[in-house]
Amino acid sequence: MKERDHVNKQEIVEEAKEMMKVFLMEAKQYIEASFEKELWIETKSSRNDLVTEVDQYIEALFTRYLKQYFPSHRIFGEENAEHKVESLEGAVWIIDPIDGTLNFVEQKRDFAISIALYMDGIGEYGIVYDVEKDDLYVGEKGKGATLNGREIRKVSDRRGVADSLLIANLSAVNLYPKLKEAIRVSRGLRLYGAASLEFMAVATERAGAYLAANLAPWDVAASKIIAEELGCIVSRLSGEEIDMLEKGTSVVALPKVYQELQNLYLKK
Amino acid sequence: MKERDHVNKQEIVEEAKEMMKVFLMEAKQYIEASFEKELWIETKSSRNDLVTEVDQYIEALFTRYLKQYFPSHRIFGEENAEHKVESLEGAVWIIDPIDGTLNFVEQKRDFAISIALYMDGIGEYGIVYDVEKDDLYVGEKGKGATLNGREIRKVSDRRGVADSLLIANLSAVNLYPKLKEAIRVSRGLRLYGAASLEFMAVATERAGAYLAANLAPWDVAASKIIAEELGCIVSRLSGEEIDMLEKGTSVVALPKVYQELQNLYLKK
Repeated sequence: MKERDHVNKQEIVEEAKEMMKVFLMEAKQYIEASFEKELWIETKSSRNDLVTEVDQYIEALFTRYLKQYFPSHRIFGEENAEHKVESLEGAVWIIDPIDGTLNFVEQKRDFAISIALYMDGIGEYGIVYDVEKDDLYVGEKGKGATLNGREIRKVSDRRGVADSLLIANLSAVNLYPKLKEAIRVSRGLRLYGAASLEFMAVATERAGAYLAANLAPWDVAASKIIAEELGCIVSRLSGEEIDMLEKGTSVVALPKVYQELQNLYLKK
Repeated sequence: MKERDHVNKQEIVEEAKEMMKVFLMEAKQYIEASFEKELWIETKSSRNDLVTEVDQYIEALFTRYLKQYFPSHRIFGEENAEHKVESLEGAVWIIDPIDGTLNFVEQKRDFAISIALYMDGIGEYGIVYDVEKDDLYVGEKGKGATLNGREIRKVSDRRGVADSLLIANLSAVNLYPKLKEAIRVSRGLRLYGAASLEFMAVATERAGAYLAANLAPWDVAASKIIAEELGCIVSRLSGEEIDMLEKGTSVVALPKVYQELQNLYLKK
């Protein structure tokens, strides 16, 4: 166990990157091995809200790494952890060990590990790891974002709804029925079932927007950092800022798509 | 140019497999190279019905291979070819050079080459090639189906709607509004935007059903062979058989899901 005294954010982020390398390698191996066996699966709040031994193992594994590298940092995660983080003071890690658990169970694809570091409420470092594709998205406050080590270019500010594919949960469409019209004028609807990867589709301009009705902080914490670094706009569907301690609606969009959605399709 | 006299179906299919190996390798190289340059793109029947130089090149390339290997066979394709095939007598190849052209253009993923051989109206051999994932699905009448050379296991006959993800176009839901209820009781909705890959999601049991309102023969010709070999049921949404010379609705589903859809959700 190493006790380290980090004097500044930059040092912490550099150390975090080292930790992430070894953690993600071990996580990927474990997940791939899990494909070969029967999983223990439980339901949580509803019959489609699942948790598996893999979600729990990955979060516990990350917690072990964190205790070794950053013993003083707090952790705010989907599965075990200290679910009841009530403030974002200091250094807080927000983790979804398997975002898209249903996809993980049913499809063995389209799921991701999502981890963010917030310091005094500000997202400093976030990763989204698409395990099956072996695609690692990394964002660092003020420094842009990379995919597998290559810089991702900023999104277009000229593309509107009519030039874009949209990703939207039906429950978002039910909340804001005008979204049906947005879908109609867009290039079409897509739906993948893992929030962090749907954020990444927008961040890499494969879609113009992703709209969701009910996401938890760990569903968006890392993705928001990455998407904002690339010039996307992220907020509640109402336009309000996202409070990282609360569940709620969420939209990520290219800037012009965002304006069109707010002006035309996200008014009640 | 080799002129060959094939005495039976089996010989033709074996020869077709050889042709496919070289054709797909060349097609993949061309497609990957196309990612590096600006594409020439045109719209067809509507602003979201696209054709690119890649669609046209791949179909022309396949036509060249076919003329070399099977000069007497006819071809029925999305782009150029002999669009007006009016009967399925003899040996007819049905090709969609790029299924999911919008995904190809916007996402550089989730598109496929889809090719089927029908002999006297019967689907004898079909391939769906997910180019970006390098996943090749092959079905052969009476002999099962493979993914990258490994046999795919038959789908479950015990899984119903409640245990399955569903894939459905909104236009299918508009035609049969009771499908909203099917989606509600299912494990959730997904939508990927390439019919052949959505068929393959069901064929490999990553989803319970795929429902679409308006597909062309080249969207389903190969997928239907593969899905049926694995025990899936394929028909029009109404339950009628698909006529491979006509556009129309389409459903592919696991057997129990299919029965539930027909009994409960696909009645007008």
